[in-house]
Amino acid sequence: MEPGKIKLAKRMQFLKASEIRELLKFTQKPEIISFAGGLPAAELFPAAELAEVTRQVLQTEGGRALQYSTTEGDPALRRQIAGRMNAKQGARVEADDLLITSGSQQGLDFAGKALLDEGDVVLTESPTYLGAINAFLAYQPRFVDVATDDEGMIPEALAQALEQNPRVKFIYVIPDFQNPSGRTWSLARRQALVDLARLRGVPIVEDGPYSELRFEGEPLPSLKALDRGDNVIYLGTFSKIFCPGLRCAWLAAPRELQRKFVLIKQGADLHTSTLVQRQIATYLERHDLDANVGKVIGVYRERRDRMVEVLARELPAGVRFTRPQGGLFLWVTFPEHVNGRALLERCLEHDVAFVPGGAFFPNGGHENTARLNFSFMSLDRIEEGVRRFCRVVRQALG
Amino acid sequence: MEPGKIKLAKRMQFLKASEIRELLKFTQKPEIISFAGGLPAAELFPAAELAEVTRQVLQTEGGRALQYSTTEGDPALRRQIAGRMNAKQGARVEADDLLITSGSQQGLDFAGKALLDEGDVVLTESPTYLGAINAFLAYQPRFVDVATDDEGMIPEALAQALEQNPRVKFIYVIPDFQNPSGRTWSLARRQALVDLARLRGVPIVEDGPYSELRFEGEPLPSLKALDRGDNVIYLGTFSKIFCPGLRCAWLAAPRELQRKFVLIKQGADLHTSTLVQRQIATYLERHDLDANVGKVIGVYRERRDRMVEVLARELPAGVRFTRPQGGLFLWVTFPEHVNGRALLERCLEHDVAFVPGGAFFPNGGHENTARLNFSFMSLDRIEEGVRRFCRVVRQALG
Repeated sequence: MEPGKIKLAKRMQFLKASEIRELLKFTQKPEIISFAGGLPAAELFPAAELAEVTRQVLQTEGGRALQYSTTEGDPALRRQIAGRMNAKQGARVEADDLLITSGSQQGLDFAGKALLDEGDVVLTESPTYLGAINAFLAYQPRFVDVATDDEGMIPEALAQALEQNPRVKFIYVIPDFQNPSGRTWSLARRQALVDLARLRGVPIVEDGPYSELRFEGEPLPSLKALDRGDNVIYLGTFSKIFCPGLRCAWLAAPRELQRKFVLIKQGADLHTSTLVQRQIATYLERHDLDANVGKVIGVYRERRDRMVEVLARELPAGVRFTRPQGGLFLWVTFPEHVNGRALLERCLEHDVAFVPGGAFFPNGGHENTARLNFSFMSLDRIEEGVRRFCRVVRQALG
Repeated sequence: MEPGKIKLAKRMQFLKASEIRELLKFTQKPEIISFAGGLPAAELFPAAELAEVTRQVLQTEGGRALQYSTTEGDPALRRQIAGRMNAKQGARVEADDLLITSGSQQGLDFAGKALLDEGDVVLTESPTYLGAINAFLAYQPRFVDVATDDEGMIPEALAQALEQNPRVKFIYVIPDFQNPSGRTWSLARRQALVDLARLRGVPIVEDGPYSELRFEGEPLPSLKALDRGDNVIYLGTFSKIFCPGLRCAWLAAPRELQRKFVLIKQGADLHTSTLVQRQIATYLERHDLDANVGKVIGVYRERRDRMVEVLARELPAGVRFTRPQGGLFLWVTFPEHVNGRALLERCLEHDVAFVPGGAFFPNGGHENTARLNFSFMSLDRIEEGVRRFCRVVRQALG
């Protein structure tokens, strides 16, 4: 062995610093209008209520709230989450089906850890969430992205992908207001997915961070609710409906699998912050989270409207974009010859940023796309930033 | 594929619910005097100061403290930790060498993830920390426990283990007040380990949760300090010097490796709670952590003294125990024919609990041992519990 040179595990060759992330480091400058991140609007975080809640928790149960606690998570918090999932989605889960995680990113990592051996296959939407790709990559799977239209994965394409890939270990989807595309699966497609997955004995990892942020239309049942819970690992989070900086989320899994996830969590970080869990559980007891979510929805709806309005007015012909019914993102598709990465570089010269869409395709391609976030910037900055964006796009299209 | 039966990754067969943990579930009952856990004394947590700190953080920077933040961790907190490591241990680290983790357990998991392929070898002390075994097991290594005496690993045994196991990926040690044995490495053994590891190009994972909890004698330099930082991954934590329920710790690694750990953390949970990091950084700015540690040391020293005193008085001949100079644990060795698990069952009948020592040997054996925690119980309960423990031991020895 060569002294001084530390030999890494094989999996590390798959974890690479993203070019785009490096590029977007510049978006920290205050003059930049950034549609690149996925940040909630910080001005809506209930900081004052949380300060009061924290005071109460530390005063009445400080010793307990600052001590080690169970890996599964705070029992009161798990009961509240189960109740919420059942009320909002028509799920039928119990507190004991849940594991509290340190953000949904941890749920993604755990899904990979529990299910993936090297060379196994993950089926994803096309495009899919970059953070999920990164989490799963540590377990060295192969990704097969299934053809997807505005209503979700196309069932024939899904059936074919399952047929052709006997090593599929799970299907990863975000049915509501997907990151990055903003699209929402239709009920028929949800049912088709659940049926097909069950028939083939392949579990679904359902990621639901945005489901409650619906601006219009009727909520659709989660896959977890349609499946009745035996074949779906559901990931939920407080990041988008409350605040992400606490890092508190959960997974709901078939009971036997939930026990395996508890073992994984024990090895990974023992448990999620006791204080954070008690803060959220106490907030849920004493305050109205739904009212907070309502406020968030109102603000994001206005921001989406403004972004859509300026895009519709200023984008040249040949450029398409989605009009999501909720969530944080919309998706732009340019003509084939336009490269999103090149476009970003030009946009940065005009102090506006977005994420080129190619990053969201695990097997590459589709460089003529872009993800725009509308939750974080004020209406004025959206107006100004989207104008600049559209000007650069018009120039690029000649 | 059989419908409804989810196929797990191979690594999952190595993650098993521990028998002992199941047995110790009963120790939650208030009448039980438990020396089994590794819990700090909750009455010493600075809950009131933390409530005030939280109020300040949420009032002056609530939006930022509840928002997503960088994977590396809060810059102010990283600077404070680097300063503290350099002052207390003679290390020479900078903020950029550090990654904030969600507890040291996460640092252990990341060490396994970064370095271990299936079949690789981890060298450990004998015995070693159970939580480390559990974290590494997910990466399917082989453990080789190196013969260890009261001063640390025996250099000849270490050299031999390195010679005989070309697939050694790292050496895992807790040099101060080890969990479970309570022993502290001598300076000569530290230097020998650092030199040998460097010569063989094998990194060291140094776990230092208890180092600041020294009741007497002079502090010894960390391996990180002796090595000057190129070959040691150091794990530090606020769990034992502040409070564990926040789940905030750090790792300090050679710069190139630190960047790899950042990528791992990005996939694993994005970042540790922003609020928790701001709480601790602000506490460190406005309060005297050393004063708090001094208080903890005073209390734990008394508790160790009482435990040692009762053990010395009441244990029968043929039973040995360590008298640690700090930390949370001491270690009991019975005559060969005594089984720690059987002893625990009898102790539970008398409402007293400990952890049988066999669990701390990754390759089994050594069932005639026990770990006793002295940090969590009051002096009275230590007195009463150790008496009961000794009575059961006397009966077992006939």
